[in-house]
Amino acid sequence: MKTLKTQVAIIGAGPSGLLLGQLLHNAGIDTLILERQTPDYVLGRIRAGVLEQGMVDLLRQAGVGQRMDAEGLPHDGFELVLSGRRVHIDLKGLTGGQNVMVYGQTEVTRDLMAARQASGAQTLYQVDNAQPHDLQTERPFVTFEHVGETWRLDCDYVAGCDGFHGVARQSIPTEKLKVFERVYPFGWLGILADTPPVHEELVYARHERGFALCSMRSRTRTRYYLQVPAEEQVADWSDERFWTELKNRLPADLAETLVTGPSIEKSIAPLRSFVVEPMQYGRMFLVGDAAHIVPPTGAKGLNLAASDVSTLYNILLKVYRDGRVDLLERYSAICLRRVWKAERFSWWMTSMLHRFEDDAFNQRISEAELEYFVDSEAGRKTIAENYVGLPYEAIE
Amino acid sequence: MKTLKTQVAIIGAGPSGLLLGQLLHNAGIDTLILERQTPDYVLGRIRAGVLEQGMVDLLRQAGVGQRMDAEGLPHDGFELVLSGRRVHIDLKGLTGGQNVMVYGQTEVTRDLMAARQASGAQTLYQVDNAQPHDLQTERPFVTFEHVGETWRLDCDYVAGCDGFHGVARQSIPTEKLKVFERVYPFGWLGILADTPPVHEELVYARHERGFALCSMRSRTRTRYYLQVPAEEQVADWSDERFWTELKNRLPADLAETLVTGPSIEKSIAPLRSFVVEPMQYGRMFLVGDAAHIVPPTGAKGLNLAASDVSTLYNILLKVYRDGRVDLLERYSAICLRRVWKAERFSWWMTSMLHRFEDDAFNQRISEAELEYFVDSEAGRKTIAENYVGLPYEAIE
Repeated sequence: MKTLKTQVAIIGAGPSGLLLGQLLHNAGIDTLILERQTPDYVLGRIRAGVLEQGMVDLLRQAGVGQRMDAEGLPHDGFELVLSGRRVHIDLKGLTGGQNVMVYGQTEVTRDLMAARQASGAQTLYQVDNAQPHDLQTERPFVTFEHVGETWRLDCDYVAGCDGFHGVARQSIPTEKLKVFERVYPFGWLGILADTPPVHEELVYARHERGFALCSMRSRTRTRYYLQVPAEEQVADWSDERFWTELKNRLPADLAETLVTGPSIEKSIAPLRSFVVEPMQYGRMFLVGDAAHIVPPTGAKGLNLAASDVSTLYNILLKVYRDGRVDLLERYSAICLRRVWKAERFSWWMTSMLHRFEDDAFNQRISEAELEYFVDSEAGRKTIAENYVGLPYEAIE
Repeated sequence: MKTLKTQVAIIGAGPSGLLLGQLLHNAGIDTLILERQTPDYVLGRIRAGVLEQGMVDLLRQAGVGQRMDAEGLPHDGFELVLSGRRVHIDLKGLTGGQNVMVYGQTEVTRDLMAARQASGAQTLYQVDNAQPHDLQTERPFVTFEHVGETWRLDCDYVAGCDGFHGVARQSIPTEKLKVFERVYPFGWLGILADTPPVHEELVYARHERGFALCSMRSRTRTRYYLQVPAEEQVADWSDERFWTELKNRLPADLAETLVTGPSIEKSIAPLRSFVVEPMQYGRMFLVGDAAHIVPPTGAKGLNLAASDVSTLYNILLKVYRDGRVDLLERYSAICLRRVWKAERFSWWMTSMLHRFEDDAFNQRISEAELEYFVDSEAGRKTIAENYVGLPYEAIE
């Protein structure tokens, strides 16, 4: 068995692992990233596209904000459509100047990969059977297979950035984790198309036929979604059927101006809320999807990973620079305060905007709740401040 | 059968019926109120004690605000206690100057009874078997028995102000009403005591042993409540047991200063959300509890009755003065918009503050929701503006 050594072993080269690696590298802390897939596979994942102010700032801080700032689309608001009524949520006005940046997760990942390559810090791709060990000791290590050989990576700490299905969380004894979960009885059918966006802002539509979202990746590439039953098959949805149904759920003026075109990606994603507590086990820290999943309504998944990265980075910085090992045990509690608020907002947006087979009382309460929140300035402000992202907690 | 005639027949001499009667009488519109009970029985009901700004204004408008203004306690805020942490909700600051008035429903009723007596308008007490007829015609009437005789009251309109168990709603064919209902798996054990309030403001406490509320009727009379299981018996709760449990659920500083004393009333009330749609049938209009019930958390029951009264009064005024009979059919829709928002707030306050046997995910969401709403100024503002009462809709 060949041996490697680093300060922080990072499992997973998605945006969380790469961003954490970049921040730590810039601070002079040595990292090695282990990734099961190839770079192209990682870049092929079509995911989120709305970055909170806090994540935008963090990417700039990591030195990878140039292309985002040049090509990303700052959005100062978004639109809610409630049974045909269009309501503008003025993010900038309601939050005293904050907004969000529309810039695809794929692009974030590409920028982070390029920055890592330029920095000389190492990422191993196509790593098999990564397995953390001795996490409860002062000398944890990760074993894995790579290019036909078995390796042992000695490290101070392990960052589990390997997503919901990754090995990091699964390496923690089940009895040490408390699981919180909600599965929704529907999914999102999404398509990607090289068409101009129907509206300059994102449009979230509540409709009796089900929720619809008009999103985008750029001025020429759109990402549209439809709420569909959980058991729906992609094969049953021709492009034509998708566009027709999307028009059904949009107000007439938007439906009329919608530009359709061939889809370049089409898939159905389930909606799930999931959290494990705590988000750490000995010297391993879970980051992003490895610890929590949100339904996509509200665009919080990637952003929540970024705030975990910020928390772990700032703790490790103080650990290595100032010997503040006392901070390590606070990682989970600090993350979870923000995680649960984002889970709450994502659950709320999902509950408000989707069609549920719910009892009549709950339906009316939900209608009244949405009506109250959009008609009240204070209500709109709660939506706006959650959408742009609640502040990161300072590590002191 | 003896015959009587009036313009508006009002069934029920509780605060809704009396307030509607007073407003109409002052406007020169003739009313007759029919009440099943005696005046003393009506005054013996211990109910709400927190009046919204809108109801305070309406009582003044009706000319019955003098004693309320002299003896009522304006409250500019209230307190939430979340697992021992005290959070002040500054109603006045958060709403730009609005507040609530602590003044018991019994006192409101007493003032309205006195005003009606002084005005010479008639209320018949101890009326049996009141029954509205021909509501879908232009000549509705109400039959009833009184002092051993059978009477017929001809009228233009009927106002059903006779509460949840009253005859008004029950006179509407079942298939004409849609019922929305939620029964909560707990009740409120309340006591009335001649002790000084533990705190100058109301205190709503969320506690792992269950919800507690410290309320008051005056500077020397307190009304305290404990969440108890729905099947609990009053007989099992000695005063001593009540005070001990209340102290358990309050923060130490409040528990220490709590003055206890013998209860002068003790009862358990179930918690229920209930709405019927529509709130009218032909020429009969349902007002207050006859059409909707809220759980008491949020103090909306009496206030919602007052906003129904305001709507019906303003419509009838325009009907009699300007012949605006077109407004009559809008009564239900106008009321229901505000009713559902108050139902939403009452359900939300109840859900946030009580202990539920709920799944782990919902528990965490509920904790995160409450934490977000009290930590965010916009969140606190949503609580405050609902608590002081959303605006009444103008009738035009």
